[in-house]
Amino acid sequence: MAASKGPRRPRAETPKGFRDWFGAEVTDRAEMLTRIAEVYHRYGFDALETSAVETVEALGKFLPDVDRPNEGVFAWKEDEDWLALRYDLTAPLARVYAQFRADLPTPYRRYQMGPVWRNEKPGPGRFRQFTQCDADTVGTPTVAADAEICAMLADCLEVVGIARGDYVVRVNNRKVLNGVMETAGILDPADPGRFAAERGIVLRAIDKIDRLGEAGVRALLGAGRKDESGDFTRGAGLNAAQADVVLAFMSARGADGAATLANLRALVAQSETGRAGVDELSVIAGLLSAQGYGPDRIVIDPAVVRGLGYYTGPVFEAELTFEILDEKGRPRQFGSVAGGGRYDDLVRRFTGETVPATGVSIGVDRLLSALRAKGRIGQERAAGPVVVTVMDRDRMDDYMAMAGELRAAGIRAEVYLGNPKNFGNQMKYADRRHAPLAIIQGSDEAARGVVQVKDLVLGAALAAGASLEEWKDRPAQVEIARGDLVARVRAMLGQAR
Amino acid sequence: MAASKGPRRPRAETPKGFRDWFGAEVTDRAEMLTRIAEVYHRYGFDALETSAVETVEALGKFLPDVDRPNEGVFAWKEDEDWLALRYDLTAPLARVYAQFRADLPTPYRRYQMGPVWRNEKPGPGRFRQFTQCDADTVGTPTVAADAEICAMLADCLEVVGIARGDYVVRVNNRKVLNGVMETAGILDPADPGRFAAERGIVLRAIDKIDRLGEAGVRALLGAGRKDESGDFTRGAGLNAAQADVVLAFMSARGADGAATLANLRALVAQSETGRAGVDELSVIAGLLSAQGYGPDRIVIDPAVVRGLGYYTGPVFEAELTFEILDEKGRPRQFGSVAGGGRYDDLVRRFTGETVPATGVSIGVDRLLSALRAKGRIGQERAAGPVVVTVMDRDRMDDYMAMAGELRAAGIRAEVYLGNPKNFGNQMKYADRRHAPLAIIQGSDEAARGVVQVKDLVLGAALAAGASLEEWKDRPAQVEIARGDLVARVRAMLGQAR
Repeated sequence: MAASKGPRRPRAETPKGFRDWFGAEVTDRAEMLTRIAEVYHRYGFDALETSAVETVEALGKFLPDVDRPNEGVFAWKEDEDWLALRYDLTAPLARVYAQFRADLPTPYRRYQMGPVWRNEKPGPGRFRQFTQCDADTVGTPTVAADAEICAMLADCLEVVGIARGDYVVRVNNRKVLNGVMETAGILDPADPGRFAAERGIVLRAIDKIDRLGEAGVRALLGAGRKDESGDFTRGAGLNAAQADVVLAFMSARGADGAATLANLRALVAQSETGRAGVDELSVIAGLLSAQGYGPDRIVIDPAVVRGLGYYTGPVFEAELTFEILDEKGRPRQFGSVAGGGRYDDLVRRFTGETVPATGVSIGVDRLLSALRAKGRIGQERAAGPVVVTVMDRDRMDDYMAMAGELRAAGIRAEVYLGNPKNFGNQMKYADRRHAPLAIIQGSDEAARGVVQVKDLVLGAALAAGASLEEWKDRPAQVEIARGDLVARVRAMLGQAR
Repeated sequence: MAASKGPRRPRAETPKGFRDWFGAEVTDRAEMLTRIAEVYHRYGFDALETSAVETVEALGKFLPDVDRPNEGVFAWKEDEDWLALRYDLTAPLARVYAQFRADLPTPYRRYQMGPVWRNEKPGPGRFRQFTQCDADTVGTPTVAADAEICAMLADCLEVVGIARGDYVVRVNNRKVLNGVMETAGILDPADPGRFAAERGIVLRAIDKIDRLGEAGVRALLGAGRKDESGDFTRGAGLNAAQADVVLAFMSARGADGAATLANLRALVAQSETGRAGVDELSVIAGLLSAQGYGPDRIVIDPAVVRGLGYYTGPVFEAELTFEILDEKGRPRQFGSVAGGGRYDDLVRRFTGETVPATGVSIGVDRLLSALRAKGRIGQERAAGPVVVTVMDRDRMDDYMAMAGELRAAGIRAEVYLGNPKNFGNQMKYADRRHAPLAIIQGSDEAARGVVQVKDLVLGAALAAGASLEEWKDRPAQVEIARGDLVARVRAMLGQAR
């Protein structure tokens, strides 16, 4: 290999904040998404793939500002149009529904899976391209659509390998919170604009319950809170009785669904919106129960506060309930892997019409790491191919035929195609490929009609300190008849994997 | 739905040259790619997914010019870097190999599937985002790697549903063409720069053989050619004997592989490069034959000229040999669906090292339309869900339970979630969803413990003019016991699909 001189060479680097995915990182994700897609499909959801590029105008939110667009999206000017990479799958759904609504069924159930791009400061584990996996029902106000999505979410988690009991889908309702706000005197149905600032502070406060606990939230609901660094955050100014109402909402979960609903109904008895919200939760619980989705899978839980500021009706969140060790070795609950809810302004900005919609987004990367933590993926999947080594350079056709036979039997196999001169390099290559077995046939073996099969799983175990004693019934290398190659390799793989 | 007034509404439009994919367009492609990925995997190729965004510097070819980059890519400036969407999967592979080569096996077999973007003038059927599906082997000069890719390509076509006999993988070699150029006196191994312009014209001329035929190519090899519009294209200036050599190359295919190789060997006997090229073809043919890939699947064919200007060694192309009707109803061969070959400059611009590589790219959209033309996809796959209609709005739990039972049995099913008031609308919806069956249960049926199952496939056939006679054994609607729902629906679907 000759080194060339000349102009400065380009850097071979992934752009800042981006990454590549290799081998099982790609296939594990693809397999998980395929299984989820099968569930979505079975529920009557249709696949959609929108173009990765949208006009900035259609994406909304982020509008070009003089020379370059706002932060948040990757955008550029193309002729007269500003174009951008989609930053989620909901904005493209809104555009598609507005554009094609005459040709789509009503309601329109659709799912979409694929990359989205965020022009944000990258951080550890935070990348500028990641995968989303959404399902939404557009065009119906019935909470039967919300109940269906909760059931589907539970099915999705189970189909990818999260056992029942290791997850729970929790359901809450923004309308109940609005009833709570009315009851606490910070929402006036006759003048919805009043107390908007207070409600904003309340929403942000209850969203911090996990981090600050009840005392911290109570401070933020009241006069305000000074944090450890001494910084002061102004509170919503609620008195103790008002704050009690908000806190009672978050802790309204009872011994069972009926008790929770009774607690909520009592809390918002004075609010029409609140009562409607409790009724919706009651209908959802009934529909789910009729399909056999009991509290071991889906519960009404007013402690779900994430997203309540964004959604307009039912809100749901899937949480994994088993413990994993965090980076400091402490056990902690795995936490949320999916969330969603009802939102009603999906296409209004395009058409002026209010179209009700509800949907869920599964956190693909978090769910994958949960499956990895549970040992559901990353095991045999990662196993490499059987490597057929090359002892005689002029007998490549024999080696390729061996690999071909193994593949025809469904066994992953490849011939070593590097320089065959140094056999040690071939073994190092097989190791790097995580090959379970290596096939070896020199001219001597060829003349005798046999091949050697080397057990590399055993070799690796011995190298890692296993005693020969525990492996004594398992030879490190066997000689087999050439004609038995497929049958013997298949048997050894059954043992090796 | 209230219409809102206010500022001009954004247009709900896919950007110019982009499109969306719906339902089976997404799932048929995903399924085809999954099957191809399984073949690639079995051959020992590892999955790779590179970020969609690259630095313009890493992509090469297209460099930013003052204010905006050249045509061809979508590019934008982000802080100090120019970024761009990848325009193929080969340039990212080069970047990845240069960046991670210390951690990758040598040789590195990888496959990648995904969207690429071209900033080109859109046209009918030509979009700015489309899917590529590549497999490449990087880091080995042996033509065993090329042979392996040809075999793998044949396997891929068969696994997605192209029958043996309906395709052929044709193999040629750029080195043989170079030998032909030497023999024709327009390539001097001692002075490779000489006659470069002539060779460029020759390459472009032979690339047009399908369109211009032998006479047209002969004109371009000689003095030049005037087309129908009167425009004159200057030729390479070869005399008749020189042109004969080039044309003999393209028509060197004999009755079998041995005859073809003999013809080629005679043609380039005076050229060392040419002889080496014929030897390579001979080795490839031998390796393939040893694995059972005969001329019914893979042939040596000097008439493969596409890409000869780009590749440096073996070149291959997969062609579908069955006829389809073109837009004017005339039968024509389906043509090429995949191509590839050996190229040696993959990572040189990054590292200065020459790294040999070979690979193939399958034309995803063309292969999909071939499968559609053969009726392999787009049939039952497109069938819609069983639609459970809503007769009594307050019995949604019963209807959801029916759909849940069907889904638990693996049957695609959904409850109608639009406004149930007008039953006709529910039937229209079921039609639009391509539902094979509709489930109907009013309060009367509920009291009697039965449901009605309406056969919508039959209904559609009758509406399309089928006579009742041919369907006489098949009732348009049956009443069944509620408890038999799953069993009866499964049986009726077996009949309906």
